Amino acid sequence: MRVEETEIFKKYFENLTDRERAVFEGGITLGALFHQFVGTPVSKDNKESLERAIEEAMKNQPCVYDIKVKIKDVGEKYTSLDGRMLDVDLKIKINRTIAHLKLEYIAEIDYPLMYVKELYEE
Amino acid sequence: MRVEETEIFKKYFENLTDRERAVFEGGITLGALFHQFVGTPVSKDNKESLERAIEEAMKNQPCVYDIKVKIKDVGEKYTSLDGRMLDVDLKIKINRTIAHLKLEYIAEIDYPLMYVKELYEE
Amino acid sequence: MRVEETEIFKKYFENLTDRERAVFEGGITLGALFHQFVGTPVSKDNKESLERAIEEAMKNQPCVYDIKVKIKDVGEKYTSLDGRMLDVDLKIKINRTIAHLKLEYIAEIDYPLMYVKELYEE
Amino acid sequence: MRVEETEIFKKYFENLTDRERAVFEGGITLGALFHQFVGTPVSKDNKESLERAIEEAMKNQPCVYDIKVKIKDVGEKYTSLDGRMLDVDLKIKINRTIAHLKLEYIAEIDYPLMYVKELYEE
Repeated sequence: MRVEETEIFKKYFENLTDRERAVFEGGITLGALFHQFVGTPVSKDNKESLERAIEEAMKNQPCVYDIKVKIKDVGEKYTSLDGRMLDVDLKIKINRTIAHLKLEYIAEIDYPLMYVKELYEE
Repeated sequence: MRVEETEIFKKYFENLTDRERAVFEGGITLGALFHQFVGTPVSKDNKESLERAIEEAMKNQPCVYDIKVKIKDVGEKYTSLDGRMLDVDLKIKINRTIAHLKLEYIAEIDYPLMYVKELYEE
Repeated sequence: MRVEETEIFKKYFENLTDRERAVFEGGITLGALFHQFVGTPVSKDNKESLERAIEEAMKNQPCVYDIKVKIKDVGEKYTSLDGRMLDVDLKIKINRTIAHLKLEYIAEIDYPLMYVKELYEE
Repeated sequence: MRVEETEIFKKYFENLTDRERAVFEGGITLGALFHQFVGTPVSKDNKESLERAIEEAMKNQPCVYDIKVKIKDVGEKYTSLDGRMLDVDLKIKINRTIAHLKLEYIAEIDYPLMYVKELYEE
């Protein structure tokens, strides 16, 4: 049984709507992903294994329904993973509510932005 | 001007209520804090400087209104900061809505839980 | 060309013997590995993808000749990767000198120790 | 008693000269520092508390004799700490041998380089 399925866990979230819960869990997972993996050595040689490992690791987080990670602008020479290289699509599911969240670099504000792309009922 | 005050930033959040936005930003900041600092060497000698530095660092994150970090169970011997040692109170403010969020270790589920303690209008 | 093969890089290391250089680079890579990945969510489901991704990431670091990562004590329930779960064999090669380094948990001192297992000429 | 003063710890290092040991411990500490703190939110407001907290945290690591951390190119707007912003002087002491190590950005190779500036007897 996953931790989020336990009764003790659930009672901490009775004060939130499904939508609020979905964006809360999504925020945690995006913040966690960014700050866990920024700094990791990456080059063309390990780009794909790192993308898959980030996806698989974050699927452990509560309520993650689906996640797709792309690392952009990777060259021959290795570099430390910068948050601006991350492009993430994350789906969180709470009952029938799905939050589709995004982490992507927004050039106009020079910022790797985390936001909610869509919130819908399945 | 803080990044969250720019018009470009703001338009990404028009699809959320103030409550949803508050818990989303709170989730990001708690997930970020945990995964940034877990692993840091900590002993009685540097416990306080680390607590203050975590607070000051996380105040940079969008919409953080107040934050208090306590590191528990620190002994003479240094150890790597474990998420179960963290006790965090975080307040996020969106217009007049305040989300009071918490990260604390819950022994019954052996889990450092992030949850929303209170959501209220100022 | 890898960064460590450039002339500018090389001139910073003229003051070290091959043995000194080998253990210096090995220390960097072990310290980096530990503090980059501690905290990552891990369960039986993603243990292997994480082990492989850590190996592939750290092969980018200067002078890494071979690396094998094992994550121990992973259960059904996910947890944050703790340094005590890591068992790493790392080989660094400088000209004909090889340093075989180790990161493993030593119960007597309750410490995830990094040390040089063997230093030899190939 | 610090962990490095225990007999069990010491016996793992009998195969190294004092110089080798000094650069090994120095490598660990620089690799650890970089990968622990890269990604931390930093602006003018928290630059100094972060510099001090990094120094104090890393003094826990075995054999650290002195450390000075400077974070460069910090602006009004907050950013994630990038390894290229770090300027670190670290001294490791093993018996009478001191290794003075450096982490600094080298523009010619676009690389935050860790190297041994000086190795001497006190």
